[in-house]
Amino acid sequence: MDKLRVGILLFDGVEVLDFAGPFEVFSRTRLTPGVESRRSEDSAPFEVFTVAARGLPLFTTGGLRILPHFTFDGAPRPDILVIPGGFGTRALLADQPTLDWIRHRAAEVQRLTSVCTGALLLAKAGLLAGRRATTHWGALDLLASLDRTIIVERGRRVVEDGIVTSAGVAAGIDMAFSVVESICGPAVADETAHYIEYPRERTHA
Amino acid sequence: MDKLRVGILLFDGVEVLDFAGPFEVFSRTRLTPGVESRRSEDSAPFEVFTVAARGLPLFTTGGLRILPHFTFDGAPRPDILVIPGGFGTRALLADQPTLDWIRHRAAEVQRLTSVCTGALLLAKAGLLAGRRATTHWGALDLLASLDRTIIVERGRRVVEDGIVTSAGVAAGIDMAFSVVESICGPAVADETAHYIEYPRERTHA
Repeated sequence: MDKLRVGILLFDGVEVLDFAGPFEVFSRTRLTPGVESRRSEDSAPFEVFTVAARGLPLFTTGGLRILPHFTFDGAPRPDILVIPGGFGTRALLADQPTLDWIRHRAAEVQRLTSVCTGALLLAKAGLLAGRRATTHWGALDLLASLDRTIIVERGRRVVEDGIVTSAGVAAGIDMAFSVVESICGPAVADETAHYIEYPRERTHA
Repeated sequence: MDKLRVGILLFDGVEVLDFAGPFEVFSRTRLTPGVESRRSEDSAPFEVFTVAARGLPLFTTGGLRILPHFTFDGAPRPDILVIPGGFGTRALLADQPTLDWIRHRAAEVQRLTSVCTGALLLAKAGLLAGRRATTHWGALDLLASLDRTIIVERGRRVVEDGIVTSAGVAAGIDMAFSVVESICGPAVADETAHYIEYPRERTHA
């Protein structure tokens, strides 16, 4: 099977666990269970990369320094796109190149997802119109204010309505497992959760 | 209050969530609750940095590229040291400069901690002799084989016996909260877990 490409957007002021959680889940998923299969990419269903507007080192919230793999212009077309959150999203709400890039990728991907306040960028790009969606508990009202047609879900970790949005920070791990489960099935998602010892909440019953 | 310095070891082949989980927890802890306090470092009890043998970009498991803040020689003295795991630990079991650096820091820090197979490095450095300790479930036997005096705990997420070790990957988040709780109290740890929406298991009753 061809690997699905997972693109994760990075920007200055991205929250560390918002991108690192989904990076961990998608990059460590294996169709063959156990520890040994994690030593190679042979049974990996996903190929994960990071994308940013520019190819310079980025500073996350808290000051971790990351080098993105690709710029907007040079990135492969992702099959799954992850938009993480963080205080850095506020500046991007007025950044047309970033909103345009998200809008163009949204038209191509199989799965569009967000973590935390990444949902604000999807809303600003017009992609959540009329959909159920969620974000960090501290930004629920802001999300509603960006587009009054969004049905803002309060108190759920993962909301799937064509686009997969999730609550704050660590909920991005549950979002990633939800996508893994929908593509690879519950056994693969559960085994990967066991591998990374994450106390997963099931989102597909 | 002076901020406590949290040093996180990085190396090629470090598991992403092993270091990113504790980085997130320590860097986002605030003594003042709520969202606004997270916009500055004013009420942050910790100052978090990464350290590596060399100042070059590192490749994590899965290929994320990180620039460490400091090298062994140039790093400030940490008050809390976090040794993450990942397949990259195996090469370091024979790397004397790294084992020496860990041993020297261990003699100075207030709290020595590990995530996942980071415990293998502590064992190899002779630091877990006669102590209760844990690691990723796939490495419990290897941990025992490195030092027969270690009392290997199976099935617990966080083990505190002078040194704080934790189970695999995501259990490092619980380890970090356990340290935050022991220094800042349960209210601060719980509020930070609420902020990052992590379904925390209590380790201090």
